[in-house]
Amino acid sequence: MTGADGGLGPPISTERIHDGVIVNLRRSEYRRPDGSVVTREVMDHPGAVVMVPVEGDHVLLVRQPREAVEEFTLELPAGKLDHRGEDPLACAKRELAEEVGRQAATWRDVGGFYTAPAILTEFIHCFIATDLAPAEGEHEADEDEMIEVVPWPLADLAALIDQVHDAKSLVGLLRLERELRAAG
Amino acid sequence: MTGADGGLGPPISTERIHDGVIVNLRRSEYRRPDGSVVTREVMDHPGAVVMVPVEGDHVLLVRQPREAVEEFTLELPAGKLDHRGEDPLACAKRELAEEVGRQAATWRDVGGFYTAPAILTEFIHCFIATDLAPAEGEHEADEDEMIEVVPWPLADLAALIDQVHDAKSLVGLLRLERELRAAG
Repeated sequence: MTGADGGLGPPISTERIHDGVIVNLRRSEYRRPDGSVVTREVMDHPGAVVMVPVEGDHVLLVRQPREAVEEFTLELPAGKLDHRGEDPLACAKRELAEEVGRQAATWRDVGGFYTAPAILTEFIHCFIATDLAPAEGEHEADEDEMIEVVPWPLADLAALIDQVHDAKSLVGLLRLERELRAAG
Repeated sequence: MTGADGGLGPPISTERIHDGVIVNLRRSEYRRPDGSVVTREVMDHPGAVVMVPVEGDHVLLVRQPREAVEEFTLELPAGKLDHRGEDPLACAKRELAEEVGRQAATWRDVGGFYTAPAILTEFIHCFIATDLAPAEGEHEADEDEMIEVVPWPLADLAALIDQVHDAKSLVGLLRLERELRAAG
């Protein structure tokens, strides 16, 4: 009855509510496998990347102002795809250079996830980046972003996991901890 | 310069964009510690809970249609606070009964996180729930929710983590794996 192994179809009708800088909001109707029709408010998002950059015996984080939650948060570096369909690895390389001024010789895709599948189309691709070096060219973080790079010792990863309260960063750091344990 | 240990203030001005069923969208101006003013589009959300219910040697998941991402997703049970400030544990108990028809004798708060701190105020409280029993009263899931309960063997937790692609569920399951390892 639930078609648990299949997908769900695209909307059968859509009304635009708001087209903003980051957030586009619409109201769409969907037909379910049982024929019923439901209405959902959906935010469209092109997708994103989150990077777990390991430099020697540190993981590199960013501290930045997040006005929406009225806090400076400690997060893994991340960024939005330029457009739906952009190659996530290309985006990750660009964002790693922009946010923390590094390039990585080794990239590993460790799986992605939806941010909030009830309301937001955003899918985040997660990469562990190792063999780091300074990025070529100037490190030009967006002036508006006020990003501070924070290296954190891998030996204190558990304390970091206690402190971070951002979903995508927790997934990345818990995956890193798991990989280090498997390797060590 | 960044006031990294402090909070950020509330908005200095706000314009409502949309008041919807789940999503309320506004455009707000914030003054940063350096005096500059930035504009952010923010979705307000009362907050939520996610539960990691362990019954014997299984963890209980839910499979449900998520129209926004056009998939049936496998997630941990979760739910929205009735209002900002509702006790998260009370909400978790209600949602566990409604979504999977269980009550739990033991609840442990394992820390919470923001879903998407750049754009959404939602903070999700995460609980590991053990010593389960059938919920008292009728199990009345919202008809509209089409939720299927999926017990998953703890022995195959790694395979589950490979399969789930929902951020809050991954945080909960990675935390559970970590705790089982520490205990075992």
